Amino acid sequence: MLSLSAYIPEMIETRRKLHHHPEVAWTEFLTTQVIVNRVRELGFKTVLGKALFDEEHVLGREPTVVEAAMARSLKLGMNPKLLEELQGYTGCMAVWDTGRPGPVTALRFDIDCVNVEENHNDTNEAFRGGFDSECAGLMHACGHDAHASMGLAVAHWIHDNAEQLNGKIKIIFQPAEEGTKGACGIAYSNNLDDVDYLLGAHIGVSAHLHEVAVIRSGFLATTKMNVSFTGVPAHAGAAAELGRNALMAACSASMQVMGIARHGQGDTSVNIGTLRAGEGRNVVPVHASIEMEVRGKTAAINQYMQDTAERMIRGSAESYGVQYKIDVMGKAESIVADEDLSNMVEEIAKTVPGVTRVFNIKGCTGSEDCSLLINKVQSHGGKAAFFFYGCNNHGHHKSDFEVQDTESMPVGLQIFVESLQRLNGQH
Amino acid sequence: MLSLSAYIPEMIETRRKLHHHPEVAWTEFLTTQVIVNRVRELGFKTVLGKALFDEEHVLGREPTVVEAAMARSLKLGMNPKLLEELQGYTGCMAVWDTGRPGPVTALRFDIDCVNVEENHNDTNEAFRGGFDSECAGLMHACGHDAHASMGLAVAHWIHDNAEQLNGKIKIIFQPAEEGTKGACGIAYSNNLDDVDYLLGAHIGVSAHLHEVAVIRSGFLATTKMNVSFTGVPAHAGAAAELGRNALMAACSASMQVMGIARHGQGDTSVNIGTLRAGEGRNVVPVHASIEMEVRGKTAAINQYMQDTAERMIRGSAESYGVQYKIDVMGKAESIVADEDLSNMVEEIAKTVPGVTRVFNIKGCTGSEDCSLLINKVQSHGGKAAFFFYGCNNHGHHKSDFEVQDTESMPVGLQIFVESLQRLNGQH
Amino acid sequence: MLSLSAYIPEMIETRRKLHHHPEVAWTEFLTTQVIVNRVRELGFKTVLGKALFDEEHVLGREPTVVEAAMARSLKLGMNPKLLEELQGYTGCMAVWDTGRPGPVTALRFDIDCVNVEENHNDTNEAFRGGFDSECAGLMHACGHDAHASMGLAVAHWIHDNAEQLNGKIKIIFQPAEEGTKGACGIAYSNNLDDVDYLLGAHIGVSAHLHEVAVIRSGFLATTKMNVSFTGVPAHAGAAAELGRNALMAACSASMQVMGIARHGQGDTSVNIGTLRAGEGRNVVPVHASIEMEVRGKTAAINQYMQDTAERMIRGSAESYGVQYKIDVMGKAESIVADEDLSNMVEEIAKTVPGVTRVFNIKGCTGSEDCSLLINKVQSHGGKAAFFFYGCNNHGHHKSDFEVQDTESMPVGLQIFVESLQRLNGQH
Amino acid sequence: MLSLSAYIPEMIETRRKLHHHPEVAWTEFLTTQVIVNRVRELGFKTVLGKALFDEEHVLGREPTVVEAAMARSLKLGMNPKLLEELQGYTGCMAVWDTGRPGPVTALRFDIDCVNVEENHNDTNEAFRGGFDSECAGLMHACGHDAHASMGLAVAHWIHDNAEQLNGKIKIIFQPAEEGTKGACGIAYSNNLDDVDYLLGAHIGVSAHLHEVAVIRSGFLATTKMNVSFTGVPAHAGAAAELGRNALMAACSASMQVMGIARHGQGDTSVNIGTLRAGEGRNVVPVHASIEMEVRGKTAAINQYMQDTAERMIRGSAESYGVQYKIDVMGKAESIVADEDLSNMVEEIAKTVPGVTRVFNIKGCTGSEDCSLLINKVQSHGGKAAFFFYGCNNHGHHKSDFEVQDTESMPVGLQIFVESLQRLNGQH
Repeated sequence: MLSLSAYIPEMIETRRKLHHHPEVAWTEFLTTQVIVNRVRELGFKTVLGKALFDEEHVLGREPTVVEAAMARSLKLGMNPKLLEELQGYTGCMAVWDTGRPGPVTALRFDIDCVNVEENHNDTNEAFRGGFDSECAGLMHACGHDAHASMGLAVAHWIHDNAEQLNGKIKIIFQPAEEGTKGACGIAYSNNLDDVDYLLGAHIGVSAHLHEVAVIRSGFLATTKMNVSFTGVPAHAGAAAELGRNALMAACSASMQVMGIARHGQGDTSVNIGTLRAGEGRNVVPVHASIEMEVRGKTAAINQYMQDTAERMIRGSAESYGVQYKIDVMGKAESIVADEDLSNMVEEIAKTVPGVTRVFNIKGCTGSEDCSLLINKVQSHGGKAAFFFYGCNNHGHHKSDFEVQDTESMPVGLQIFVESLQRLNGQH
Repeated sequence: MLSLSAYIPEMIETRRKLHHHPEVAWTEFLTTQVIVNRVRELGFKTVLGKALFDEEHVLGREPTVVEAAMARSLKLGMNPKLLEELQGYTGCMAVWDTGRPGPVTALRFDIDCVNVEENHNDTNEAFRGGFDSECAGLMHACGHDAHASMGLAVAHWIHDNAEQLNGKIKIIFQPAEEGTKGACGIAYSNNLDDVDYLLGAHIGVSAHLHEVAVIRSGFLATTKMNVSFTGVPAHAGAAAELGRNALMAACSASMQVMGIARHGQGDTSVNIGTLRAGEGRNVVPVHASIEMEVRGKTAAINQYMQDTAERMIRGSAESYGVQYKIDVMGKAESIVADEDLSNMVEEIAKTVPGVTRVFNIKGCTGSEDCSLLINKVQSHGGKAAFFFYGCNNHGHHKSDFEVQDTESMPVGLQIFVESLQRLNGQH
Repeated sequence: MLSLSAYIPEMIETRRKLHHHPEVAWTEFLTTQVIVNRVRELGFKTVLGKALFDEEHVLGREPTVVEAAMARSLKLGMNPKLLEELQGYTGCMAVWDTGRPGPVTALRFDIDCVNVEENHNDTNEAFRGGFDSECAGLMHACGHDAHASMGLAVAHWIHDNAEQLNGKIKIIFQPAEEGTKGACGIAYSNNLDDVDYLLGAHIGVSAHLHEVAVIRSGFLATTKMNVSFTGVPAHAGAAAELGRNALMAACSASMQVMGIARHGQGDTSVNIGTLRAGEGRNVVPVHASIEMEVRGKTAAINQYMQDTAERMIRGSAESYGVQYKIDVMGKAESIVADEDLSNMVEEIAKTVPGVTRVFNIKGCTGSEDCSLLINKVQSHGGKAAFFFYGCNNHGHHKSDFEVQDTESMPVGLQIFVESLQRLNGQH
Repeated sequence: MLSLSAYIPEMIETRRKLHHHPEVAWTEFLTTQVIVNRVRELGFKTVLGKALFDEEHVLGREPTVVEAAMARSLKLGMNPKLLEELQGYTGCMAVWDTGRPGPVTALRFDIDCVNVEENHNDTNEAFRGGFDSECAGLMHACGHDAHASMGLAVAHWIHDNAEQLNGKIKIIFQPAEEGTKGACGIAYSNNLDDVDYLLGAHIGVSAHLHEVAVIRSGFLATTKMNVSFTGVPAHAGAAAELGRNALMAACSASMQVMGIARHGQGDTSVNIGTLRAGEGRNVVPVHASIEMEVRGKTAAINQYMQDTAERMIRGSAESYGVQYKIDVMGKAESIVADEDLSNMVEEIAKTVPGVTRVFNIKGCTGSEDCSLLINKVQSHGGKAAFFFYGCNNHGHHKSDFEVQDTESMPVGLQIFVESLQRLNGQH
């Protein structure tokens, strides 16, 4: 058993720093600066900006939001030169090439926060520690602060132990996991083409403190969609026949979409999460917008849901004579993890000090966009695995989410590092 | 004032004969036989079968229903040769050409019954007189028996008074007025191209016994539509995703169509009258059919209703991935009657013995497919008028509808004949 | 013909002052201050605050909006003592009692603006004159600035000519006409109980410059309703069965309400103007709110629309297991104006210099909450009339609405003053 | 291994006789006569008529259909005395009491057919054998003819081997399994109160010829519902506001019910199978009826579907001001079979000559109302199991369904008889 105690204080400190300044999907400029500065300091090469993505498959990135975040970041101390390098895209892939033959192993850590207002009182460990969120309405309430800082700790370890390693290591600091937005652009880029092993993880979820869960299969495939309808205004009392009613198209589409027939081959779900329509009480509504999502047990079943929803949206637009537009804002898939690699993770986990329970999950629910990276790696014969390392959170995306960093994070770090040793170590 | 008393007993007798054997839209074979035999006997030329219609504009005629009626009529004494002449089309235009110059005047009488079961008891004048309907579920509950026999009485008078007349007279015995089906095919034929004057009438409606109402304008334009959706079956529990749901398309279309926005320029209405869908409890429904109608104050407003309904039907079919078909089953329009001709009718009516009240109606509600004939005649500069001659009916299309034939019908006859005298008489 | 030229410059100046600082429904504190100060200066008694209304029938007044407006008004120079007198309620009734026997005549002027951003460029007369709106998003785009200042000009004339008048005169400066909110509370108060004559007017609408239209009957009855649904949240992917979906209740209600059956006795209309629902993409929506309106040719037909809509809202709430709340935000009725009083207005209008056309309107469309005051006065035997004095506006509630004040307003003033002379003058 | 060859020819003959005259749910009078006559002949006691059911829980039995079937059966040779004994209820429980101590074992066989027209041509084994259905539109297309005749073969074997048996044996010939109607009334009766073991089976389904499948758990819980709405008629064009629209209530309910949110704990499904509404094109529809079903992975999940559907039906009725009625027409549940008894069946199956594959099914889909009997027996501590014995059917409920009786049926018979020997044999 390796001793990684030397890396832990730094990891905890970084995690708390990130926790103090959370950034939502596609706006993680300061977070990215922390990461890039550190991995460059350690001697990694970095893949940044447009080079990290296939731009056509970047999802859910709204230019106006990104531009505002860039301006804000400059005011808060962002290096203008780095900002330029980023080309408007957050995230970073840090690459260590040992120069020796050997496998290419990728480790994936996501870095964004959620739109939740943190509890600013003594019941919250972050508040007590003085590192609760300084950004109103934003919070690392899904633990991606822990993920990002763990990636940096792994990077530090690689730097210190590079002579014992073979092959190449790619640490992917992925932006915009929330809403399953960020992975798609990376999956469609060529950055994973040479990857033999991919390992991802999440803190918490269904694992409690001192537990590790190995995901053998599951995650629901999902598509996040924004829909807009555009009609024609008219005075509703005097000449409604001249209008084209976007609100009614949205209501009709909502009624139809919620009624998409269940799929005989596996679970589905659908939600019209928000609907905003209309301009005034006595005007035939011109604009309507919907935020929705579909899910399915498999990519095919999810695709059935998405296709059917799109057909109904198109049909409702036709019914009311309005225009429509569908933007895919996020996407994730289901996975079947590699058996060997998962076994390896399971074995390692059982040896980690303090871990009291290691279990496997088949048919994991929820959605995770690392699935896209896993499936990409598997598509060319690579192997991939995913695990949860536990913490006693009080619910993800809740204002009292906690991670007990000093107890939970060392477990994850140990598994990542020992996995690297097994996969890329000199035996 | 002409005395027409010689024609009345025959007219009453014919009316009661027709009342005893009512026939619905497009099945009036025996009724047509009565008419054709009589007008030929009187020396009229007849326009029959396909020659009476533009076949492309024949509405609401279902071949299987027509064929069954033809077979039944043969069993009940229809002359096979006449049946052959009719080419499957009921109705007749009887033409009298005086050979002398003069105007062409058309008189229109409709001949079909409705789907109502007559009251077979002493409260009903027809039952008491022994001439109530012998056909289960069918009844002349809208007085078209009176109309048809009045047309024959007018024909008799023309025959007797031909020497005093000029020009040409066309007596149109129109089938299928119920559901506004029959007039369209005649309006689009060339049979009205030379018509200078057209006169139509209805018994009852808003005129009581001894009253005459002259329709100056109105009738709602209307379109009667049958809609069918065809989907794909699937086991609803095991593989609903393979189905395409015609029932839901019909429900969605119904919800949308009932919500077509009001028109700022005038009254509209819409009704989904019947909906039949589905094959079994646990099968994704494959077939759905709707009988519906739209109405509007003017042809343009009605067209807005029809177009919007069609768009919604198309959109709902798209939403559910099903095929659809729309059949126009009937059509009528609004009218503005000719002022001079209407004044003439009003004047004549005031002189008819026993008439106690003559009034004008602007903005008449309800629908009447004679409107199509009126608008056709007016389209080439002809003049047209329409009137109600009253009876104390107890509601049209009701099982206790009555016409008090001996009192009500002579009024109508007098107005038709005197109109003819004024229009085609030798002055 | 009276010469009122002495009153016109002041009227125009006041109108432009009000135009420069428009205030929306129930926030007209500074406008009310201008009015109250002036009428008190002229010697009128004032009815203010809660005394002007029956509080239970005050519609569409949102306390948080009112409180913000009060705070803002203080900053902008509102007299705190007057603000206290107003008790949170804008508007004013100015009463002149001659002390002599005679009729009680009420004149009604409305004072609020609409939510429209004015055109700030040379195409706009107000911009050219330097008196365009200083309040972002607010504009007197319906001419109530002209109405209010005309009321003050009439008040000035009364003050100057009081010795020639009998009876009592009540000038009602009504707040919140937009959305038909303000009149209801006044109609249900006792302020109109002694009124013998009521005269109201609107600038523009269907009258062009130099035209006067006398409304003989019409206005659509209307009810403005806000609807809210409250459900139960749940994770849409993991446990949607625990949620209660307010968004779907709102969509269902919208589909149903748009399909309320037409009324056979007269025009109706309905509009779901806005719908806002839902909190997040993957959460079962908890909140939904709708702004809607119904209209009907008569109060009874409008009530049918309102009752049916309420039933459908209740039913949809039941269907989705959510709570609902309906707030009536505004209300107006149809009218039949008094024939004699309308004739008087017509006669006067024909004598006004520069008026080139006077016409009557039966079945006036649109809605106007003065209807509630008219019907209240008529309910106890009083007489009421309403007229339009024209201007070449470019569409009410549009950013380029104009009134050509120097040409249009003198016409209205002349009609009001001469009517007062006829009704309350010493003959 | 027992030789049962003596019983097979008789079993096949009976099966073909029943196949020739199929009877649908609750009309199996002649089928019941065959059964009752035979088991009485063999010395069984019979529980018939109302004694077989708890009448309050009899589902989907329509008196008019039953009465017509009784009349028809009399014409076709039904013994009037037996018909009287049946009290209008089909089915029979045949009881053999050995008089010796021992367990009570129940075997369940269902006896009704489905509404399918059989293929009357050479591709069909029944047609070739001359025993295809003589009843138009009816067919034993689910193999219950095989079930019933197998029950009689078992009865014969019991009669012949009674001396080797202990305890009591109840052979339940259950009517009305299609639509899951018949079991509920039996489950709620006291006929199963003393049952220690219950064994049921189905031919075909997912087992091919020479295969046996043991159902360890599954079947979807389901509720079959008929819904009717009753409104108020009105002329749709002239006075639609007086109507109450049952068709629209049904459409609205259908839209809502198809959109019942998925359940996070397990599969659900819902189908609006048929909808019939309306009387005429221009009449506000008065009557609407729906045949629908809901399903769920467990009874609780199915109940969620049923409760939610009922709430939506109630809400839609409220929305449209119409009356509604919901009749539960059928019901089934999910099961967890007894492990020991299932193991026993599995063991026996493996020894049956000609059986090439025995497999277990967990999470069996589809619905089967034997589930109600199984759960009833388990509720008081009894044990139950269920199995499929295969045939190469071409799809259940299809017109070319086949069972290859001489090959498939002996397998089922062997398992039933050997199970009896093990459970009630003298060891």
